[in-house]
This record gives sequence, C-alpha cells and structure tokens, in this order.
Amino acid sequence: MPHLQPSPRHEIAHLGHVELLTPEPEKSLDFFVDVLGLTENGSQGDSVYLRTWDDYEHHSVKLTAAKTSGVGRTAMRASSEAALKRRVAAIEERGLGIGWVDGDPGIGPAYAFRDPDGHEMEIYWETEKYDPPEHLRPSLKNQAQAYPARGVCVRRLDHVNYLAQDAAANGGFVCDALGGRVTEQIRLDSGVISGQWTHFAQKSYDLVYTNDWTRSSGRLHHIAFATDTREDILRAADIALDKGVFIETGPHKHAIQQTFFLYVYEPGGNRIELCNPTARLIFAPDWEPVTWTEAERAKGQAWGLKTIESFHTHGTPPVPA
Amino acid sequence: MPHLQPSPRHEIAHLGHVELLTPEPEKSLDFFVDVLGLTENGSQGDSVYLRTWDDYEHHSVKLTAAKTSGVGRTAMRASSEAALKRRVAAIEERGLGIGWVDGDPGIGPAYAFRDPDGHEMEIYWETEKYDPPEHLRPSLKNQAQAYPARGVCVRRLDHVNYLAQDAAANGGFVCDALGGRVTEQIRLDSGVISGQWTHFAQKSYDLVYTNDWTRSSGRLHHIAFATDTREDILRAADIALDKGVFIETGPHKHAIQQTFFLYVYEPGGNRIELCNPTARLIFAPDWEPVTWTEAERAKGQAWGLKTIESFHTHGTPPVPA
Amino acid sequence: MPHLQPSPRHEIAHLGHVELLTPEPEKSLDFFVDVLGLTENGSQGDSVYLRTWDDYEHHSVKLTAAKTSGVGRTAMRASSEAALKRRVAAIEERGLGIGWVDGDPGIGPAYAFRDPDGHEMEIYWETEKYDPPEHLRPSLKNQAQAYPARGVCVRRLDHVNYLAQDAAANGGFVCDALGGRVTEQIRLDSGVISGQWTHFAQKSYDLVYTNDWTRSSGRLHHIAFATDTREDILRAADIALDKGVFIETGPHKHAIQQTFFLYVYEPGGNRIELCNPTARLIFAPDWEPVTWTEAERAKGQAWGLKTIESFHTHGTPPVPA
Amino acid sequence: MPHLQPSPRHEIAHLGHVELLTPEPEKSLDFFVDVLGLTENGSQGDSVYLRTWDDYEHHSVKLTAAKTSGVGRTAMRASSEAALKRRVAAIEERGLGIGWVDGDPGIGPAYAFRDPDGHEMEIYWETEKYDPPEHLRPSLKNQAQAYPARGVCVRRLDHVNYLAQDAAANGGFVCDALGGRVTEQIRLDSGVISGQWTHFAQKSYDLVYTNDWTRSSGRLHHIAFATDTREDILRAADIALDKGVFIETGPHKHAIQQTFFLYVYEPGGNRIELCNPTARLIFAPDWEPVTWTEAERAKGQAWGLKTIESFHTHGTPPVPA
Repeated sequence: MPHLQPSPRHEIAHLGHVELLTPEPEKSLDFFVDVLGLTENGSQGDSVYLRTWDDYEHHSVKLTAAKTSGVGRTAMRASSEAALKRRVAAIEERGLGIGWVDGDPGIGPAYAFRDPDGHEMEIYWETEKYDPPEHLRPSLKNQAQAYPARGVCVRRLDHVNYLAQDAAANGGFVCDALGGRVTEQIRLDSGVISGQWTHFAQKSYDLVYTNDWTRSSGRLHHIAFATDTREDILRAADIALDKGVFIETGPHKHAIQQTFFLYVYEPGGNRIELCNPTARLIFAPDWEPVTWTEAERAKGQAWGLKTIESFHTHGTPPVPA
Repeated sequence: MPHLQPSPRHEIAHLGHVELLTPEPEKSLDFFVDVLGLTENGSQGDSVYLRTWDDYEHHSVKLTAAKTSGVGRTAMRASSEAALKRRVAAIEERGLGIGWVDGDPGIGPAYAFRDPDGHEMEIYWETEKYDPPEHLRPSLKNQAQAYPARGVCVRRLDHVNYLAQDAAANGGFVCDALGGRVTEQIRLDSGVISGQWTHFAQKSYDLVYTNDWTRSSGRLHHIAFATDTREDILRAADIALDKGVFIETGPHKHAIQQTFFLYVYEPGGNRIELCNPTARLIFAPDWEPVTWTEAERAKGQAWGLKTIESFHTHGTPPVPA
Repeated sequence: MPHLQPSPRHEIAHLGHVELLTPEPEKSLDFFVDVLGLTENGSQGDSVYLRTWDDYEHHSVKLTAAKTSGVGRTAMRASSEAALKRRVAAIEERGLGIGWVDGDPGIGPAYAFRDPDGHEMEIYWETEKYDPPEHLRPSLKNQAQAYPARGVCVRRLDHVNYLAQDAAANGGFVCDALGGRVTEQIRLDSGVISGQWTHFAQKSYDLVYTNDWTRSSGRLHHIAFATDTREDILRAADIALDKGVFIETGPHKHAIQQTFFLYVYEPGGNRIELCNPTARLIFAPDWEPVTWTEAERAKGQAWGLKTIESFHTHGTPPVPA
Repeated sequence: MPHLQPSPRHEIAHLGHVELLTPEPEKSLDFFVDVLGLTENGSQGDSVYLRTWDDYEHHSVKLTAAKTSGVGRTAMRASSEAALKRRVAAIEERGLGIGWVDGDPGIGPAYAFRDPDGHEMEIYWETEKYDPPEHLRPSLKNQAQAYPARGVCVRRLDHVNYLAQDAAANGGFVCDALGGRVTEQIRLDSGVISGQWTHFAQKSYDLVYTNDWTRSSGRLHHIAFATDTREDILRAADIALDKGVFIETGPHKHAIQQTFFLYVYEPGGNRIELCNPTARLIFAPDWEPVTWTEAERAKGQAWGLKTIESFHTHGTPPVPA
C-alpha cells in the first residue's frame, strides 16, 4: 500500500468497550458482576452490557453468549467527528473497512473494520454520557457512578491484548491507521517482533499484540481492567481464591510497562488481567519504543517471577495446538 | 476494698463479642452486612448474630433491637477454665458480679458482671469453633471463613471504647480484676485521668474508657473493627461516602496508639471506628503506660488533625447534655 | 483581542519543570533531597537542578536561592516543533511574549512568556533524554533512573497551582493559547470563578489557578509531586512528622479531582503538595468542566475534612494581607 | 526425660534480638542500614549492633563478622524475673544449658543454652529501654525511635526460621521448655513433621523449625523483619531490584500463616524475609495446630506461586549437599 500517510496522534481518544464471547454466559455474568464488581446496564439479544464504575459512557463490556470464547468487536472513541472521518478514510484506504453500523445502546453511528489479523473493531464519535439511576448516583459529581463496594471494584477497562499472526503488522496498523504509537515491544533474536504495546495518549498502552503460537488469527490473549491501587490487586487475589476463580499467575509486577498484575480466567475461558499502573504515564511526545530482547525476557517479570508457560499456550477461542 | 490481690496477666485471652443496641434494627443490620461486610449467623428474639470473617467463634456482634442506642453486654473469653474461675472470684470479691448465665449461641456458661460504671460484661471459657457452611468455606484452612468481598470486609471486632464517670477507676478494674494492663492514658492538667487504654496481650488495646462529659454511666463511645490494611480504611471512606453513611472524622492516624482510623455512625446512632494498627504490637512485659498531657492532646492527631468536637458530645444512648 | 483562534488540543505535551525560589536554599535543598527523595543533577549560579526518579528529562525542579519565596519560571514541553511555533505565535498574538531564551541545562531553545497574571513560563521542544550515571542506573530499562529509596520517593512533578487575580482569565489563557482544557472549576455564588483546573491530555490537571485573596499577582499556591501510591502519601506524613516538616493538612482526598493529598511547607515557605490520583484519568475528549458551587465546597473535602483556613491565607511570596 | 512438666504459656514475652554471622561484614552492614533501614547502635569486637525503628530495647540484630554465614545466638526476653528462673530450671532439667553470661550491651544477665539441634539461644529479663539521641527522637512519644525514611524501613525483627534435623523435636522443646505453642505445621505423608511454627503470644509465630535436607545441625533458613504494610513489601522489591539485592522469591502470600512475603539474600549469604501479617493474630488460647499435608503444600503458596526450589537447597552456613 504505497503513498499512505501515517496518522497524526490523538485521533483516537480512548478504548471504549470490548465485546467478550462466552460459552458460559450466566457464570461469566456472575463473574463480572460479583467478582469484578461491574454493573449491568441493559441487555439485548444474547448480549448483556456491563459497566465499570468510572466509565462515563454506557458500557465497558458487551458480554455475548456464543458457542465458544474469544473477543468480539472492540470499540474505540475518536477524538472528534473530524478525526473519525479521517480514520475511516485511512482504514478504507487500507481495504480493511466493513462499513457503518448502528452502534450499541448509548453509542452513535460506528464504523466497523478489521485489523490485519481479522479482529473486529469499530470507531465512533457520538456517545451518550452515562446518567446513573438514583441508587447508583455517586456522592461526588466528578465520578460516573457510585463505587460498587462489591468484589474487586475495577475502575475501568484498561486494555486489550490480541493474539495475531504478526504482532508488528498489527501494531503498525494501529499506528499508521489509527494514530497509535508503540511504547514497548519484544524483539526475538531472529528479528521477529513477538509483542507490541501501542497507546493513544498518556496511558502507556491501550492495544497490545502478541504473536499467536498457533498461527491462528483473530484470537484473544486477554482483556484487562484497571484497579485504583496495588492493594486492590492483592485483595483481588484473595477474592479470586475464595470465590473459586482460577488464578493463572501473579500478583507480580511486569517488567514491560511495570504494571502490577493478576491474571485469572473467567468462567467462559477468557483470560482476564487485573492491573494497576501505579502513577506511571508516558509523557514524552517523542518516546522511543523500548525494545526487550529474548535474553532480557528470559529474566522473567520485574521482581523475577518467570513468565508462566500457559501465557504461550492459552488463548481464546481454543484451537488445536 | 482492702487486701484484694491484683490479677496476674493473660487471664483474659481476648474480647469475644459485643452486644450493640439499635432503635433502627433493619437499617443497622444492612449497615453491618452490606457496608462493613459482616455475615449473619442466626438470630434469637430481638437479636441478630453477626460475624467478622476471621472470627473463630460463633459471632462478633449481637445486634439487638432496642428503644435506644448504646452498648449491651460485652463478652470476653478467659484464657482457661481455671482463669475463668479466678476472675469470677476476683469480680465477686469486688461485689460487681451478676451471676452465671447461659451464654449466647455457640458460647458456653458465662459469668455476667458489671464494671464499676455499670457496663454489663461477661466472661466465659467454653466456646464452639465456627464451622462454616459450604458457601462460606475458605480456601485456606487456617482461616475461619471465606473472605466476603462485600463492603469494607472488616477482619475482626477490635476494641470497645466506653464512656464512664471515672475512666481511671474502670481501667483500674480491668487491670486489677481482669488482668489487663494500661498501655496509654490521658492525664488532664487537673490530674484527672480522662482516658485510659487497656490491653490483655500483644494487641495494644482491647478495652478503653473515656470520661463521660454528661456524668452519665454505662454509655458507649464507640466499638471498633480492624481491617487488614490502611488501604481498606481509605476504601471504607469511599464506601461510606457512596452508601450514605455519616463520616464523623478521618481517615487519619491517632497519636495515641498510632492507629489509622475512620469514624462513622451506624444507622442506630452508635459510633463505629474502622481501624488498622499497621504492624504495631506491644511486646514489653513491663511496658510503662504512656501518659499524654493536655498540651500534647491539643496538638491533635498524629499528623495534625484536630480531634473533632463531637468526640466530646456524641455518645450512645443520647442523654441530655 | 478579537479574532484569536482557540488552540487545538495536545499542543503542549506536559509540564516540564518548575523553578522554585527560596530564601533558605540549603534547607530547601535538604528538604527536596532527603525528605522528598529528589536527586541533584547539577547546579548553575544560584540554582540547583533536581530530578524526580521517573523524569525522562534533565530536571523537574530548578531550586533558586532568592530573597523571598515563590515560583520562578514554569517550563512546558511542546508536542512537536510545529506545535511550539504555533504556540509562540498564539502567545505573541496575545502580547504576552518575552522572547527566546537559552533553556536550562538539558533543555533546548525556549520561548519565555507570561500568563495574564504575570507568572513567568516557557515552552520548548528540544530536550536531552536523561542518561543516568552508573550508580543511578535503573534495573528496568523503561525507567529513567533507579528508585532512590530515600524519603518520600516522589515519582514526578505533577502540577503547579498558581494564585492569580483572575483564575478564569488565566485558565482561559491556558486553553486558548496553549491548548489546555478546563476539567473542573469552582464558581462562587457571585458568578466569579475562584479556581480553575486545566489539563493537556489524560492526566486530569496540570496547571491550576486560584484567586489570590490579596489581589497580588504572580504568586504561588503550591507545586505538587505525584507518588506511586496512596500508601506513599501516608508514609510521607510519617516522614514529615519525624523530619520536622510542617504538615498543613491531610492526608485526605480532595473532592475536586479526587486526588489523595498531603500538604507541607518546605523550609523556604513554599507549600508543597504530595498527591496521588489512584488510577483516575480523563478520557472523554469532550469532557464538560465540572463546576462546584459554594455550597458544595462548604462540605469540605471528599470525606468531609474542612478545607483548611490557611489555604486562603498562605501563598508565596508572602504579601501584606 | 520423664516427669518433665510442660511449661505454662506466656513465660517468654518476645523474641529480643538475633546474632547473624557474615563473611562480608561491610557489605552486610550496608545492606541492613541502607537497604533495610536499620540504625547502628554501637559495636563491640567483631560485632555491630543494629536496631529496627520500633524496637524498645538496645538492638534487634547483632551482626558479627565470621568465616562463614549463619545464625549466632538468638535472645528472648522472659515475661518476668520469676519466669526467667522457671525457664532456666526447665532448660537445665533438659540438659541443654550453657550457663549465665553477661548479656550484650543494653541487656542484663542472660542464660545461654542450646535447642536440641544445637542453635545457641539465651533468655534474659533485665533490659535497658532505648533512649534515642536527639536526631533520632520520634515525634510521637509512644514510638521508640524516629522513622528512618531510608530503604525498606522495617519495623521489627519478626521471627527466626531455623533448619534442624528434627523440626518437631525442636518445636517441642520450644513448647515444653519455653512455653511456646504450635500454630501451624507440615506433616509429610510419611508422618514426619517437616516444619513447625511456634509462638509465644498473639503474634502467630516467633520461632520456626524446618527439617534440614542436609541432616546438618545448627543452621539457619532465614530471619524475618516485619514491615508496617504490604505496600512496604512491594516497595522493598523495587528497592532490592535497584540496589542489586538478590530476590529469591515473592512478593506473594504464604498459605501457611498467610504472611505477605519477600525473600532476599543479604550479601553474607543469609536469607532474609521481609514480611507483613496484615492484621492477623492468633486469639484462641486453645488454638489447635493447623496441619498441612504434602498434597496441600504441593498447591504452592496462597495464590498459587510454587514454593521455590532453593527453599530446599539454600541454608546458612552452606554445607555440602
């Protein structure tokens, strides 16, 4: 695709919501509501809409009953109507557009498309500001919803980590077509980029791509929710323990991005990260991607925990290895 | 009372449970269950039994519907059957005994008595170890009950702070008759001891007396529940805020005992402290009471917060000033 | 000034550093190094350069010996060279420019100007990425400098809060000329905006203006440093206590912006805020400013702490009331 | 040894201090002072005395230069002079006494003895209350010393974990001769007790024995220091990372005792645990030891971290495997 212009920054304001597929819809719903502390905000067909307590929009997660697990469509909000139009044009230039669709409840017209690996995405500008019912009204007016005081109480949908046949090609698409920037990446000794973290603004990552060991496309490594504190992550581990939620690894601190993390599986099989960045943000407008070598990765996470083997064997939906 | 022997230490093992009176029983119950995260464990007559998640006994609080607020009977577990007999004798010598009573559910025979100010108390030895039902079974076998993941999730009943006409006389009773020791106290310029903190073992206080400005007797300043972390106290403040619970003062750190605290009122009007001691314990077997002067108290709490005026005007039950 | 174009967003990437004036240079230096945990990075004339551990640039604070206290020049980094030129033009249009100056060590050419209230500022594009000496090299390559393990260990310079004759006029300047946006503000019953919080990207505020009760101009309310956790703020209070640093108020949570805070005075008299935002960020590109009324402000901070009186009487440099 | 009376409880008030041997005395000293935040309090011969900030006695650690690593003498304070005499008699009855020695600086006459495995110990009653010099005077009078604000700032020496040929025999000695009680233990499928945790009061463990895989005697598994918060442990991991201290495992939460932990090696080779118990205490005077099976231990730590292999291969001093 010659002559394509790289995108300016700040065209995408933020990750809006993500659709998660589950073969265990009732158990998954219980997980998101009781364990993570999300709040149901309507349903439609096979989908239930769920919101984190500080989401200013209608929902953070669209939980959809399906034959198998995995990620459905990821929605991002553009920075302006003009930015939306520019991004649509850029996507169409790359031949990855699907077309305009009616957005989910609370979301205006959305332009659906696919990343090069086939993950479905959409961008939109119009959105309805969440107006909580009386019993969910917060005490402080600069907060979207009352603090749920139930389960982990995650604050927001933080990022999505996709599996892809070619992490770099997909990260490149996020940069070129959507205005993202690479903050960190892993380069194998072979030269292959096996993982790439991209962000849209000061938050240090929003969309992440990891190479899929099965060479499948369109799969999910995990979605992540941010908590307010590291202590919330430690509490989350205790909650998972006593609620019978499978803990895959953590709590510990990632070397990459220095995020404090806990990984669990929701009942539908999807991996969920609970994460806290402490106060880390990326400020430099000319931040140079930090590239980690195989040798550096072999050291494990920040404080020495070895990266768990199942990180390289478990994705959703499951596929034959 | 001449010739009375002072009590050896370690005769009382720990505070067992406390009865709280409320004129708003349903709202108070909601508060303890939904806001603090206690678990109901049966009821009898006008009383509901409630337990914190790491209490090894039947209940931590007996919540009793009543015409007004205040504290009912406070129960303490003796260190052994022999210690129980010795304490009963010591109390009888002081003429403060009421007599043997059938204990609450889960509690064996208890000897009821009054402190000099008239607060009802009981001591007991036999107790039934809590056996959680399946849905409350913890994952780790050294824990009494599953972590509730609801509201503040207080760990234990921590201490009771009584109002009394004469703090020193009552603290003295705890020491002489029950084997407590004074860890800290306030001495006014007049020489009057206006507050006294007593403990039974390494925990730095269990029963506290503060002079009652109304010269009434038998009243309550507050009961306190310990959380696992200071962060839990900060979360508790957010929970109180969005659950409409009145916050009286805090979070802050007490100068006395250095406890990190938050004070709220439960719907029945009783003051509840949520507290965290960090890792502070009293180890010295010959600890000399720390005595705070009026001038020192005037400096406020540890980091400078002035002691709130209502600390000297609000007690339960309310009485004419 | 008719026909001036409002600025697009994202022209300023972030607050770079701030110059602080002190009549007690040695004691102030000890405060920043030993109490806050900043690292000295050279000196020049009457100034010492100091850096927080995760600043990617040369310094976060320029501490300058002076006859009195207050704020010197605040430096901001533009998002690009083109953005820098656009902002210079916008400032010049408004007649507030001073002119190009040689930047501080590590900083390229800077354009100096004044906000309407007279506070000196500069913007720059070129900057030298900090290269730590061996003994300050971090273990993780995505970090600017080793964690100091000394004092509070503040992570970054977070924001500057100026006193001004007209908060709204100055906040308006930040928006119109620099591309900031108002996230929150206080409107008195008289209609006067008495405080305005502006930000450049996802961080919820960077430059703040509060009306100066003395009607002076160019004064400082406080500068703020962010810590990684709320626990760091609690530790900071203990550190301040035992290092003899004056604690003005806190720790507590602001209602406005929900920041967890502690205010102290450094030995030169300037007010320093230590703050932690938990994971709060502003994502909505069309965020509508939250406006607090006098009645709402009268409720005090988030959990009820009354706003301390000295917030309305102490600014630097001191002026006759 | 027939007819020996088991000891009553509460004869030992607490762990006093421990002597640690190091072949790298200067580096070890730097570790304790700069990394852990202990304060030097005199030296004598080859030993330096070091104190944690809330130790009411002269020192918490006696660091002694030696040819190899390991533990020297562990000192415990009796609950009273009478308790001291009773314990001396009980030890002598068991033939494990060494005799009266002059205590370390600040410590009165001490009775030295050995546990059955040969670890040297002493008990004493008289002790000198620490009186801090002016620059270490705390702001709050109920605290032993000013908060150091340097490194990890551990609060106290928490426990000692010995390696022994027969954990149960040594734990039994602590119970029978010293009045300890077993709170938790590991029983292998063979019936062998491979680890035993004993305590003296509400703190849930003070002296721990683990079977030595080398069948050596007198060796050390680790000594542990308590921090005030779990966040302090997370900070400690970052401090270790950037100070070049070897992290063996953690932070994570033990299943046994539920302690939040981090294990590092000090430069002399001794394993050091940094630990936080949250608010956990043992209150039941008739607590039944919690016995963990091999199968339960195979599950790893509380949140699933596998027990690190070096826990079963690294002890001090090193011996041929």
